[in-house]
Amino acid sequence: MKETIVGANFPRDAEGRVYHIGVKQGDVANRILTVGDHVRAKRIAQLLDSEEEAGHPVFEKLSQRGFLTITGRYKGVPVSIIAIGMGNSMMDFFVRETRASTEGTLAIVRFGSCGSLSHQAPAGAVIIPKAGFCIRRNLDYFSKEPLYPELKDKPYLFSGTFPADEEMTQLLSKQIKDALAPIEKDGLLVGPVLSDGLNADGCSFYASQGRTDSNFWDDNEGVLQEILSIYPETHSIEMETSMLFHLANCASKPIRAAGCMQVFADRIANNFIRPEIVAVLEPAVGRACLEALIKVQIEDEMDPVGTVWEPKK
Amino acid sequence: MKETIVGANFPRDAEGRVYHIGVKQGDVANRILTVGDHVRAKRIAQLLDSEEEAGHPVFEKLSQRGFLTITGRYKGVPVSIIAIGMGNSMMDFFVRETRASTEGTLAIVRFGSCGSLSHQAPAGAVIIPKAGFCIRRNLDYFSKEPLYPELKDKPYLFSGTFPADEEMTQLLSKQIKDALAPIEKDGLLVGPVLSDGLNADGCSFYASQGRTDSNFWDDNEGVLQEILSIYPETHSIEMETSMLFHLANCASKPIRAAGCMQVFADRIANNFIRPEIVAVLEPAVGRACLEALIKVQIEDEMDPVGTVWEPKK
Repeated sequence: MKETIVGANFPRDAEGRVYHIGVKQGDVANRILTVGDHVRAKRIAQLLDSEEEAGHPVFEKLSQRGFLTITGRYKGVPVSIIAIGMGNSMMDFFVRETRASTEGTLAIVRFGSCGSLSHQAPAGAVIIPKAGFCIRRNLDYFSKEPLYPELKDKPYLFSGTFPADEEMTQLLSKQIKDALAPIEKDGLLVGPVLSDGLNADGCSFYASQGRTDSNFWDDNEGVLQEILSIYPETHSIEMETSMLFHLANCASKPIRAAGCMQVFADRIANNFIRPEIVAVLEPAVGRACLEALIKVQIEDEMDPVGTVWEPKK
Repeated sequence: MKETIVGANFPRDAEGRVYHIGVKQGDVANRILTVGDHVRAKRIAQLLDSEEEAGHPVFEKLSQRGFLTITGRYKGVPVSIIAIGMGNSMMDFFVRETRASTEGTLAIVRFGSCGSLSHQAPAGAVIIPKAGFCIRRNLDYFSKEPLYPELKDKPYLFSGTFPADEEMTQLLSKQIKDALAPIEKDGLLVGPVLSDGLNADGCSFYASQGRTDSNFWDDNEGVLQEILSIYPETHSIEMETSMLFHLANCASKPIRAAGCMQVFADRIANNFIRPEIVAVLEPAVGRACLEALIKVQIEDEMDPVGTVWEPKK
């Protein structure tokens, strides 16, 4: 910890930087592509305009808490690429601290990886959900002195659904289908693109996604069956995207959100994606996400003056 | 993604490394100090025995997913220091993947930072909880089509408590009190050490810890009041330690866990700790954690042969 921080409710440093992401007003654009790991963020950032094309250098900030923010332009339009790590807590940090550091509508595309619960989406497929729900371990169930006897038969709790932004989801779907079509033709094990289903977002990679682990008391043998009986159109399962949709739905100023996930883990066939497929799939989907992002209509984009994307004279 | 991964239930690479932490059998010791950020982990790792003293180099592994594992010896005893980032999902990864990569009893000390809900613990104090409970946002409450009408008046759900290991907690408490006594005498704003209370662990830094944010619909104005009325002995609030206690309590092979947190955010006076206090407090508490860890009795520690702490001939 190097900076003096002000306030315990929404801590910021003396220059107004939010505590965990480490950015301030003018560091993050209205259009944001968010991913999990830094390597993916940096690889996609190679698609951004050069300093000569953009008229300014690409901004990069790695916070002590592990968030990586890269802001530049794609085909002239200001965009940020933000790597947030894993889990719904990290998604919460990202959405709230980004919202607190920007003005106007936010358009957020999540590009992640997921498990598949659909026969139509093997490893190498891409899933674009229309909405998402959450799976949360009911910790009270596992306590010796539970607070909620009415939940004593529910080791996991699910939620109602939270819709993605319809227009952005359609844009994203079209861009990704167009991007993968030539690769699929080449006979690589890439695709298909599956849309119009639901995403399930678990509070962990293991128990709440129905993964079995004899080292722990989990009572999770029925989780996947249960979510599929409540929501038969569930295609994907991961840890962040439904949380993004949820927060976008709870936002008082407009946050428009869409998501796409590469299937890494085929939970039906118990297969994992191979690195050579990722090497082909990821750049194609990354570029499609940027294409979709810059096509979203935003009426109240921030003025570039004083931002990191203000062209230098 | 560089490695070929096997299995979708508990993915590992071809050499048996777990997918997110990136370690295999022999990389992690039975005694583990876990922290949030890398900087803290590396600073504490400077206290480990030198290669000459230990008879082997210090092992260090940074995984692509952001986990940092450092294994060496402290006063001759094998210990690992693991930085896990933030949030209960990250604690879950850490506990499960570490358990899957070790044999015998695990003794885990968490050293984190927290908010304080106690007048006795201002910024600069250290809290050592005897047990913890969890606060989880009830996402269903915020959905237009909720699944659980019986929870429609509960935007946040709490849990029963999960005890820390009693003996380890006492050991840790004694070591930290001994370490801070001379510094407190110097009149620095460090301490006191507060033990025997409860830790609350929220699923987010903001809403579930009662932080207000007009940018989102949260209905969380009453959260802190509510937990204090259920559990008046709540001293600390953060995001990982109760989850550690919870998983230790659910483990089928012994995991002993204790935790200590520096108060960074005084939620009563709305103060945040100053960097010069952290600079004094953190090394003292870090050393005390290592001292406590090596004093824990473990009967079934792993054989060093083939591990990263096996002395070189």
